[in-house]
Amino acid sequence: MMKTTGYAAQSADAALAPFDFERRELRADDVAMEVLYCGVCHSDLHQARNDWGWSQYPMVPGHEIVGRVIAVGNAVKLYRIGDHVAVGCMVDSCRECDQCRKGLEQLCRKGNTQTYNDKDRFSCEPTHGGYSKHLVVREEFALRVPDGLDLSKAAPLLCAGITTYSPLRTWNVGPGSRVGVIGLGGLGHMAVKLAAAMGADVTVVSRSKDKEADALTLGADRLLLSSDTEAMAEAANGFDLIIDTVPVKHDINPYLPLLDVDSTLVLVGQVGPLAEPSTVPLLLGRRRIAGSPIGGIAETQEMLNFCAKAGVLPDVEMIGIDQINQAFERLERADVRYRFVIDMATLPASPASAA
Amino acid sequence: MMKTTGYAAQSADAALAPFDFERRELRADDVAMEVLYCGVCHSDLHQARNDWGWSQYPMVPGHEIVGRVIAVGNAVKLYRIGDHVAVGCMVDSCRECDQCRKGLEQLCRKGNTQTYNDKDRFSCEPTHGGYSKHLVVREEFALRVPDGLDLSKAAPLLCAGITTYSPLRTWNVGPGSRVGVIGLGGLGHMAVKLAAAMGADVTVVSRSKDKEADALTLGADRLLLSSDTEAMAEAANGFDLIIDTVPVKHDINPYLPLLDVDSTLVLVGQVGPLAEPSTVPLLLGRRRIAGSPIGGIAETQEMLNFCAKAGVLPDVEMIGIDQINQAFERLERADVRYRFVIDMATLPASPASAA
Repeated sequence: MMKTTGYAAQSADAALAPFDFERRELRADDVAMEVLYCGVCHSDLHQARNDWGWSQYPMVPGHEIVGRVIAVGNAVKLYRIGDHVAVGCMVDSCRECDQCRKGLEQLCRKGNTQTYNDKDRFSCEPTHGGYSKHLVVREEFALRVPDGLDLSKAAPLLCAGITTYSPLRTWNVGPGSRVGVIGLGGLGHMAVKLAAAMGADVTVVSRSKDKEADALTLGADRLLLSSDTEAMAEAANGFDLIIDTVPVKHDINPYLPLLDVDSTLVLVGQVGPLAEPSTVPLLLGRRRIAGSPIGGIAETQEMLNFCAKAGVLPDVEMIGIDQINQAFERLERADVRYRFVIDMATLPASPASAA
Repeated sequence: MMKTTGYAAQSADAALAPFDFERRELRADDVAMEVLYCGVCHSDLHQARNDWGWSQYPMVPGHEIVGRVIAVGNAVKLYRIGDHVAVGCMVDSCRECDQCRKGLEQLCRKGNTQTYNDKDRFSCEPTHGGYSKHLVVREEFALRVPDGLDLSKAAPLLCAGITTYSPLRTWNVGPGSRVGVIGLGGLGHMAVKLAAAMGADVTVVSRSKDKEADALTLGADRLLLSSDTEAMAEAANGFDLIIDTVPVKHDINPYLPLLDVDSTLVLVGQVGPLAEPSTVPLLLGRRRIAGSPIGGIAETQEMLNFCAKAGVLPDVEMIGIDQINQAFERLERADVRYRFVIDMATLPASPASAA
């Protein structure tokens, strides 16, 4: 076993605090990595506080992970010591079902194994995330960080990036596509950057005119103020795809008429109930509502390569691990532009290093 | 002007009663028809009672109309006197927008003209439906009733038929497709018959085991009891398309997990709010919710031809026009298998015939 250390929640109402624990002995197809950076996703907060009702404690959150390989199992083919690798929201799947064979491990028929707050498929040990010094993961679920991608900013691509990249690709966004983005947080700001990099015409739909300058800076072509009923009416039928990143229960009825015929509003933020939708805009335009969860491993690698080539990186605010509870509080107030990343060098290497 | 007669609602709380009125003088591209049969759609009831809030009175309902051409305008090319023709939910559209040019007149950018409770695009006169002796309609919005299709049963195809045929075609149902149908009324029983005729494997999803025998008789392969949680869990991921015909506010959450990855639940019955849906089954399976409104003119003709060839006809209960209020009451209790059709020969030809 590899002794390591991290920050964990011990219960739904406890602050995160230092926590020593063990990572599994390397299996033949495992790589061990030193975690260099870990993004702070809104779902880390939801899970630490058991907002979704399935939390297990102690819990080491974190699923936007960038690091360096420090050891490899006997049979590892893809990576060598020293390689820069990344891990996202899942660390395993059945790898045999139709979805896994199609590269849609996120939709594995038997359920993928989540990076934290889940159980290993073989040993049934709890999985722990990237708010820690080290991580052990089977090589097929590690991603290669392309040369030239800034390691200190890349981590949020592993969740915020792929969660918005995947629906943009699934719904065939390309040059000239008319894309709307609702919610300008961690996911929303990546949706804007990625859609713009794909050549789309991008509109941020927001309740707040204050966000206009930021939206334009991020690459949006305009901001549509959702409280301006005249502007909303003029924008009707004007979108091929809307990415809705709002992470709480909300009312999608004002947005549905913005979709063109046969077009889709994709939910990527909220996990739980939506306010009552009206069928009228669905019926009148054969419009659609869908959900989309992260992306498969091959698509995640494609996204990292795309970001390296297109120069797309999240806007991050770097914090030390000892600031994580303060960061959670600010995240709750949406007071971050646009993603916290933990510099894991700030975590003392006690009780042990695996090197 | 052509004097005619029908049954109309004079207000939201009035019973339908005899009503004399005038149809417009034939325009060059109009045909006049004697109405032989008219189906009774649940939406006739909703509109007569102003359930959707946009009703105009007096209102002559009816948009499942089969008749015989009795006069043609100077420029009419498609029909001759004596032809059997049909009219559905719309009688005009702009015919110039991208949707109309694609044959999707039901999704006309300027809005189609509804067969009743709407206004003519040129004269702004109120439109009146098929609970009447005669109808005048531009030839492009009349359908040809194929030889061999039983005139006395064909009328419900014009709404219940096309409303279920169109999503089956849009979502590419064919041999082996796994189709679920929720709600076994006028629309639902047509969805079963049409999907079965297309070669699909058809499951009726119902709260009531009592419907099993009827479901099988209509062509379903099985009934799935929605109150049987074990059977529902076993059926998870088992459907490529679900047609939801329930015409009132309801909870779709029990049905969403039945959809396979990337599959769609299409709402065709309810016009108004749905109960709060959870995003969880949408996210976990990239599942979709959509609406679908009737179909275009070309698709409606294709549907009539398909039904004639495949021998698909609704199960109807024939009534006289003087039984319409009683039929509305029974419809409200879902006491009909599966569609009332008015034999318009029961309507006295006062005050005038147009022949």
